[in-house]
Amino acid sequence: MSAIGNLRERVAELADLAALEMLATWDQLVMMPAQGAGARALTLGTLARLAHDRAISEEIGSWLQEAEGSDLGDVDRDLVRVGRRDWERARRIPPELAAERARACADGQETWQQARAEDDFSLFSPALKRNVELARAYGECLAEGAGPYEALLQDYDFGLRTGELQELFGALAHDLPPLIDGSAAKSTPEEMAIPEAAQRKAVTAMLRRIGVDDGGWRVDVSAHPFTSWMGRGDIRLTTRYTESGTESLLSSLHEYGHALYELQVDPQLERTNLGGGTSMSVHESQSKLWENHIGRDRAFAEVLAGELASAGFDVAPGQLHAGIVSVRPSLIRVSADPVTYPLHIVLRFELELALIEGNLAVDDLPAAWREGTKRLLGLEVPSDALGCLQDIHWGAGSFGYFPSYALGCLIAAQLWETIVAEIGPREDHLRRGDVSAIQRWLGEHIHSHGRRLDTIPLVQQATGAGLQTAPFMRYAGSLTAA
Amino acid sequence: MSAIGNLRERVAELADLAALEMLATWDQLVMMPAQGAGARALTLGTLARLAHDRAISEEIGSWLQEAEGSDLGDVDRDLVRVGRRDWERARRIPPELAAERARACADGQETWQQARAEDDFSLFSPALKRNVELARAYGECLAEGAGPYEALLQDYDFGLRTGELQELFGALAHDLPPLIDGSAAKSTPEEMAIPEAAQRKAVTAMLRRIGVDDGGWRVDVSAHPFTSWMGRGDIRLTTRYTESGTESLLSSLHEYGHALYELQVDPQLERTNLGGGTSMSVHESQSKLWENHIGRDRAFAEVLAGELASAGFDVAPGQLHAGIVSVRPSLIRVSADPVTYPLHIVLRFELELALIEGNLAVDDLPAAWREGTKRLLGLEVPSDALGCLQDIHWGAGSFGYFPSYALGCLIAAQLWETIVAEIGPREDHLRRGDVSAIQRWLGEHIHSHGRRLDTIPLVQQATGAGLQTAPFMRYAGSLTAA
Repeated sequence: MSAIGNLRERVAELADLAALEMLATWDQLVMMPAQGAGARALTLGTLARLAHDRAISEEIGSWLQEAEGSDLGDVDRDLVRVGRRDWERARRIPPELAAERARACADGQETWQQARAEDDFSLFSPALKRNVELARAYGECLAEGAGPYEALLQDYDFGLRTGELQELFGALAHDLPPLIDGSAAKSTPEEMAIPEAAQRKAVTAMLRRIGVDDGGWRVDVSAHPFTSWMGRGDIRLTTRYTESGTESLLSSLHEYGHALYELQVDPQLERTNLGGGTSMSVHESQSKLWENHIGRDRAFAEVLAGELASAGFDVAPGQLHAGIVSVRPSLIRVSADPVTYPLHIVLRFELELALIEGNLAVDDLPAAWREGTKRLLGLEVPSDALGCLQDIHWGAGSFGYFPSYALGCLIAAQLWETIVAEIGPREDHLRRGDVSAIQRWLGEHIHSHGRRLDTIPLVQQATGAGLQTAPFMRYAGSLTAA
Repeated sequence: MSAIGNLRERVAELADLAALEMLATWDQLVMMPAQGAGARALTLGTLARLAHDRAISEEIGSWLQEAEGSDLGDVDRDLVRVGRRDWERARRIPPELAAERARACADGQETWQQARAEDDFSLFSPALKRNVELARAYGECLAEGAGPYEALLQDYDFGLRTGELQELFGALAHDLPPLIDGSAAKSTPEEMAIPEAAQRKAVTAMLRRIGVDDGGWRVDVSAHPFTSWMGRGDIRLTTRYTESGTESLLSSLHEYGHALYELQVDPQLERTNLGGGTSMSVHESQSKLWENHIGRDRAFAEVLAGELASAGFDVAPGQLHAGIVSVRPSLIRVSADPVTYPLHIVLRFELELALIEGNLAVDDLPAAWREGTKRLLGLEVPSDALGCLQDIHWGAGSFGYFPSYALGCLIAAQLWETIVAEIGPREDHLRRGDVSAIQRWLGEHIHSHGRRLDTIPLVQQATGAGLQTAPFMRYAGSLTAA
């Protein structure tokens, strides 16, 4: 077989193994009996080890070299380019470090859970110190002259620079708080309690309206909403039903954004190393676009209110809309409103950068968290459980992941302005729940490319500009205006 | 690492890959959206290829050789013995033949489905010829002096001999039809229609009573009931709800028998090549024991009737029991009563043996089927769809599999007589739904051994005798007595 034939076969195998990992993880979170957790952890460990062995094997190197010297079509050229990048990065990590990180990540999550439950940072700090050291060591293996934090970023978002993030997030830290100060003075509408049965019916009807059918989708319930794709014709999202009635609707739209991205990748990239979303931040831009710019649109509130009415819960579209766009600084990231949300990320970015680069000691984290929360959100932190112990990420050894959440908000706003500029205002369409032109635009300009374009060139190509804060600031301004 | 350490690591890996295959198959049949079928087939293909590569690799041979020369404990000795058997059998199949069989099996199932729908054997016969030839070639690779059919048997039931089956099944063909002739003259009770909601409640309550809890089990619905085990603490069975009200209860007990077998394998065999049921026939004996000897027990009918009553459906235990033990020859295997069922298998065994050994041409199969059905069941076959096209097995390339269904009936009866002899009549316990002593006996004498004992030594050790027809004939006699 030719070198490119061998490469294609191997990346197809790796895509299949990734699909199995998705499936086993989805099953664990949605279907598996609780007592199966131990066996599932072992199974997932075996799968990860096998996939890693197949991804770093020597022969890939000779196939790449031969393919790089041959005459290839466009897709194969990208397949080889991304293949070399993935292969070289994977091979730079010593197996002992990878194994040690996997153990520390499992231990760290458990310790974190206990520390949060007991609101006792001192229980968590030894595990966090170990995770910081291992992440720094990991980053140094990949750094190639840059700092270890920038190297960690590349796992989630290839091509991002720490300096660019500092600039973007610095602008948010400067410009957002004044907007919020003005808005928080306004009275906030009370939360609406919507019966679960009505939420379920409305979520199902809303998703069906935008293309979620039983033939190629599943919609289930899980403790934390997420999206999985097991291959063509099999996309699964989850939601959850809480007392706060609109969360299930908005979070379903959020997950739908992730799902649509994977669904609309060019079919010719299927089962290659190019056949998925290009980065965490672009993925998050897709979910945020559906959540913030469609779900929170005033005209689309008529669709949501209509579906709720059909499900037996009457609410005026205006009242529903006021509830889902209200802005008020709060302590917990995952329930933050769309305007203050990025400030939670700015705080985490500042702190994790300082931890990895050695400018902040783990023991000083709680104090730094309190200072940052006061500075960015104007709030006092009454306890570490509601402060620096609230997120699982650092306990699980994930550093460099948080920025994608805020970048997602920025890119979503930037894409939305481009969509409106290119295909016209969406008000009339959204009032009828017609999102077909938006789906097509996203498919053409974002989704179809898969991993062929990295975040920054993709955004540049779709919007004519690099990453910016201005579109998001205009969106934030529209929500905080009197 | 020592040779035995390396072997243990590899068999653990293969056990994990088998668990993933179980999971992906379970998901396909129970959860997957229909449009995911194409991608799932590719994923399962990759998994099978990878597992096969890991199972036949050269290094296993040197580990086996080194381990065979070292001082090992009991379990490790069995691990090495079974490891050598599996490794040598797997390596004897040329990869091209395995690939060709996989393709023929996929094609054959599709062709079979179409032929059955159109009741046209000629559509199916080319695919069946190809499957027969490939199965024969496969059997010849493994034959080691025996015939190719006997070699095929070993995939499902290691140590079975064709001659022994001919003797056992010959006795059934001789002794069973006269019993049935007498019984069929009696009037058969009418089928009971039980509302699906009542069936669901009764199935759930019955299973809970015998140990099925949410912590380590799942019970779902699928087109054809089956059982899967993904590892400790994660056993899943499925059932289906049809108009014939008792099928869901009996089939749930059947699947429970499979599940309990895997559940009670000695934990020290977990994630080894010994950590599962030893053969198809012993597996089927476990399902048949729960279906035939507990589910169809007169005293246990009080439990079933009680659960149905609690679910809102009143039926007298005697009437319920009469319905589930009635005997009447019929054309379709899967809905046959417990007495005539083995005759359906005897027919298939005779025919598939003749096909593989070249004593029956595929084109003559429909006529041979009609002759056998007349001889064994006393029935005319009105169409091939109700005759030789009714089962998927041959279309899927499975030859040598059918016998385990009848052997399961024989072994179940033999075990049941031993259980009653050793722990006393079960009537009082079954009337109360107390099956704990039966579970314990099966755990100790059958389940715990995993693959350490093959079918015949296992039955010998548990019952003091080899495979026999007499216990089943006594069971059949009790159901056909006036």
